[in-house]
Amino acid sequence: MTHARTVTAGLVVVGDEILSGRTQDANIAYLAKWLNEEGVVLKEVRIIGDERPAIIEAVNALRQRCDYCFTTGGIGPTHDDITVDAVAGAFDVGVIYNEEALQMLAGHYGPEQLTEARKRMARVPDGGDLVKNPISGAPGVRKDNVFMLAGIPGIMRGMLEGLRGELAGAEPMLSDAVTVFAPESEMAERLAAIQDAHPEVSIGSYPFFRQGEIGAALVVRSTNAGHIPPVLAAIRQAAEAIDARWVDGEALT
Amino acid sequence: MTHARTVTAGLVVVGDEILSGRTQDANIAYLAKWLNEEGVVLKEVRIIGDERPAIIEAVNALRQRCDYCFTTGGIGPTHDDITVDAVAGAFDVGVIYNEEALQMLAGHYGPEQLTEARKRMARVPDGGDLVKNPISGAPGVRKDNVFMLAGIPGIMRGMLEGLRGELAGAEPMLSDAVTVFAPESEMAERLAAIQDAHPEVSIGSYPFFRQGEIGAALVVRSTNAGHIPPVLAAIRQAAEAIDARWVDGEALT
Repeated sequence: MTHARTVTAGLVVVGDEILSGRTQDANIAYLAKWLNEEGVVLKEVRIIGDERPAIIEAVNALRQRCDYCFTTGGIGPTHDDITVDAVAGAFDVGVIYNEEALQMLAGHYGPEQLTEARKRMARVPDGGDLVKNPISGAPGVRKDNVFMLAGIPGIMRGMLEGLRGELAGAEPMLSDAVTVFAPESEMAERLAAIQDAHPEVSIGSYPFFRQGEIGAALVVRSTNAGHIPPVLAAIRQAAEAIDARWVDGEALT
Repeated sequence: MTHARTVTAGLVVVGDEILSGRTQDANIAYLAKWLNEEGVVLKEVRIIGDERPAIIEAVNALRQRCDYCFTTGGIGPTHDDITVDAVAGAFDVGVIYNEEALQMLAGHYGPEQLTEARKRMARVPDGGDLVKNPISGAPGVRKDNVFMLAGIPGIMRGMLEGLRGELAGAEPMLSDAVTVFAPESEMAERLAAIQDAHPEVSIGSYPFFRQGEIGAALVVRSTNAGHIPPVLAAIRQAAEAIDARWVDGEALT
């Protein structure tokens, strides 16, 4: 079965701590790979602060232009956790307590320890649902095509486990690479000609300068496995034409 | 001297390789810290693919809403390096060869090795200028308030060295932290009250679950150093009120 259409996703990272440089993001690459396994292409990421208008604008932009929109961060119990409220604002709906989430929290903390702050974690936009977390139990929230996930990497990954097979994905994008040990500029003209001759794939050139070695990983992508090997062969030939060493796969990048 | 206004920047990361999950971004956190040292606040980051309309849209959005707009990636010699062309499109100007850049390239490669592909690296949007790179020599490009930097981290950092002191920054944002070893939800109500009592600072709560320890780094930010210690003291007191261990600074996050 082939799907002509690409299925796309956008990601809104809610995080003052990323914008201040305090924290190195660890979720974007993980989510990108997970989406690819599900046949979904990550089209755009926006990293914004913990501010309601910024979250509303980014969620509305990405949920409308992509098939799915994910958010990470801002769904905990503290005053700066405002993602659920902002997503409700993006949909112009109210916020309600989810009964199932309240029961899970009461079971976890005990009913007498279910403070107002903890109950915040059971709030969902009206019409929203839980995203089960088979790893740690802490659920995410879904409202239509928007998935609100935790910012803590281990918890976000558990929520994604609960979403395996739930998205209507297309064929996963496949890729393979040749690494050429030569300055990118020596390969550039031959590479442009190969791309022109093979519009059925996309070729990316990812240069590196490391430990005295200069080169580029040349990555060939297609949803059709048969389209890739002839292009890799053309790249190897181009490398040999300029007397450059090459290895299959990605080396040293 | 105090500046009432915040000086802001946006960042457009041009990178299929980040969106595919192939590469872990290493530039965002570095640029965020560098901007903070220059008194500039990073307000928003957008990560998009190597596509002209996407770059134009993101650059136009961020150069208009922020004082400065940075881009990383897509300024090399290969067919997928289209940032300069797209930024020219965003400003609705043409692309020209920068004479100084041509001379630098001719000096580096020798005039007879200055191929068309290499000459691509001397192209700038009309009215644009070079961003000197005191580390490796490879320059970035500036057009009005848009700075086009390399995607390779070592080269991007060199270009930022060339920009030290060039931005009209405000006072740098200062921060200090207390780490509290308790579930975030136990601190949440006291923390909200402290934030309400101290609108002159912003308090961020960054939870962690690691090696069996649960807690949160509580980060207090202000441009005024004197505003921070009283808030840290209030947080320590709140931790003691719930019998939670605390340490100054950020631990285990």
